[in-house]
Amino acid sequence: MAVDYTLLKDFPCFGDLNEAEQKAIAEFSTAECFPEGYTFFREGEAAQKIYLLANGEVEVLFSIGDEGPVRVDTLGPGEILGCAALVPPHKYTATMRALGEVEVLAVDVPALLKLMQDDCPVGFAIQQYAMRLMLDRILDFRLGARVAE
Amino acid sequence: MAVDYTLLKDFPCFGDLNEAEQKAIAEFSTAECFPEGYTFFREGEAAQKIYLLANGEVEVLFSIGDEGPVRVDTLGPGEILGCAALVPPHKYTATMRALGEVEVLAVDVPALLKLMQDDCPVGFAIQQYAMRLMLDRILDFRLGARVAE
Repeated sequence: MAVDYTLLKDFPCFGDLNEAEQKAIAEFSTAECFPEGYTFFREGEAAQKIYLLANGEVEVLFSIGDEGPVRVDTLGPGEILGCAALVPPHKYTATMRALGEVEVLAVDVPALLKLMQDDCPVGFAIQQYAMRLMLDRILDFRLGARVAE
Repeated sequence: MAVDYTLLKDFPCFGDLNEAEQKAIAEFSTAECFPEGYTFFREGEAAQKIYLLANGEVEVLFSIGDEGPVRVDTLGPGEILGCAALVPPHKYTATMRALGEVEVLAVDVPALLKLMQDDCPVGFAIQQYAMRLMLDRILDFRLGARVAE
């Protein structure tokens, strides 16, 4: 694993970090491509990787009651799959599956969490970006709630 | 302004901080009570305070198109009003209005942001809690989206 660190510049999540910080993250990141139907992870599993979505769409699935997993949301380029990995108990809260061919940057969670703990300004910057994404998502849902009335 | 720092122990957001950190935040926080219909802040305004909701309910309003503000969500005890204050551009993304009598801990945003910058572990811990709240909110919306189908 490991990618050329210059690739990280394309991800806003890491765009504000300096070269040394980007190089550190590149060490435990890989550029990957997955086919339609690929399951990145399942609800309740311990988080091993987060995926920064570069191209393609992913469906978000929940198991509700006795039903099998049901789609409750979709994510597109720029989104992060598995944000819940960043906060205790570091478990995925949903199942994510590729809706078509998908390109991602896969980042190792234990290594990322260690870096965020050891280098607090890096952790702070990454969390700022994750919060921005989450706030945008909440905004979208609230606007959708209005439209659905 | 300033509250007894022991009051902060009741807010999970600050519960993990040590006594010195809680005392620092207490310096720029106030316990306040507002009547039904009180508007805490409006969509688009620069964030001056965030409010930790201790008791009561608050409605979340958006202006959509030519309509006046429309309710898109409600928040209850344990929620934070104005999380968007924590990330650039530090502006409120919605209008918040009390649905009944409401008790809050009001925290000064410029002072909090300065503390979070100056003391990175404190900033990190507060971000972690805000992220947890946001993830729970997204989970609620996704489950609601399923029910509404």
